[in-house]
Amino acid sequence: MSRQSNRTTDSKKMNSELFTLTYGALVTQLCKDYENDEEVNKQLDKMGYNIGVRLIEDFLARSSIGRCQDFRETADVIAKVAFKMYLGTTPSVSNWSPAGDEFSLILENNPLVDFVELPDNHSTLVYSNLLCGVLRGALEMVQMAVDVRFAQDTLRGDNVTEIRMKFIKRIEENLPAGDE
Amino acid sequence: MSRQSNRTTDSKKMNSELFTLTYGALVTQLCKDYENDEEVNKQLDKMGYNIGVRLIEDFLARSSIGRCQDFRETADVIAKVAFKMYLGTTPSVSNWSPAGDEFSLILENNPLVDFVELPDNHSTLVYSNLLCGVLRGALEMVQMAVDVRFAQDTLRGDNVTEIRMKFIKRIEENLPAGDE
Repeated sequence: MSRQSNRTTDSKKMNSELFTLTYGALVTQLCKDYENDEEVNKQLDKMGYNIGVRLIEDFLARSSIGRCQDFRETADVIAKVAFKMYLGTTPSVSNWSPAGDEFSLILENNPLVDFVELPDNHSTLVYSNLLCGVLRGALEMVQMAVDVRFAQDTLRGDNVTEIRMKFIKRIEENLPAGDE
Repeated sequence: MSRQSNRTTDSKKMNSELFTLTYGALVTQLCKDYENDEEVNKQLDKMGYNIGVRLIEDFLARSSIGRCQDFRETADVIAKVAFKMYLGTTPSVSNWSPAGDEFSLILENNPLVDFVELPDNHSTLVYSNLLCGVLRGALEMVQMAVDVRFAQDTLRGDNVTEIRMKFIKRIEENLPAGDE
């Protein structure tokens, strides 16, 4: 499905429940389509990536946020602006690595998992893995390569949901040939 | 995925774009999984139905709305409360049949189709058909059998999106045996 160029940035605020249940239908469909949880996790990450590379443009337009100075500022923008905007919840930023290249987003409430309990036969399913892909895809579009994974998940009995983000490298912008 | 019994009804307001793109990923996946648009349309309706039968409980809890007196009141509640709550948009109610058993929801803006253009090879895809299933499923849980279908769709070049709803019958509540 390609993108319309003339859509507006009118904000439509909605409750999260229809999204949550629709996301559940997507995960259920992928569990039918793929043989094992690992494949489903990969597919969710890939779908998320494709969403992220498109969502970033909407995000930059809505938030009027410019280039972040460092990874700490990036972390704050993700938690306080992006999560708030698209998921209606604000995770806390914590567990910084000494080098400042890794942090965790701690979600007390993950809206994607309202209504959900993992069936026993999907113990290795990373149910919300789409979010990792979205973050990876969106950041890649602003020249940041990051590794994103779930470190804790309330669906697996953890007290909170923790998304661990690691800065890998700044991606060189591809300059058009002859523009040096 | 089964439902948690202890979830709260905290309201998480979010912008619609992540939902819109995730819905797009779902439709794209179904287009890969099923042979033709008709099957995809059926599957979307079925998924929507399953969502509707669960969403209604959340809706009744949040809205504190009781039993509607007639189909006109139902129409107003769907347009002004339910669509507003879960899609952030308020369709107008129009085109009533003389018998008062059919009406249309007219959406100037269908949030599901932001970012979307139908590819040529999916000319019979009813992209937003999930919504028909949601309405059908939710109303069935409050004892109303309805027929729901898209009559116009901006994705097909119509000026507005029109969902046509027809009242079929009131469903008798199943009383436990011996409770007569």
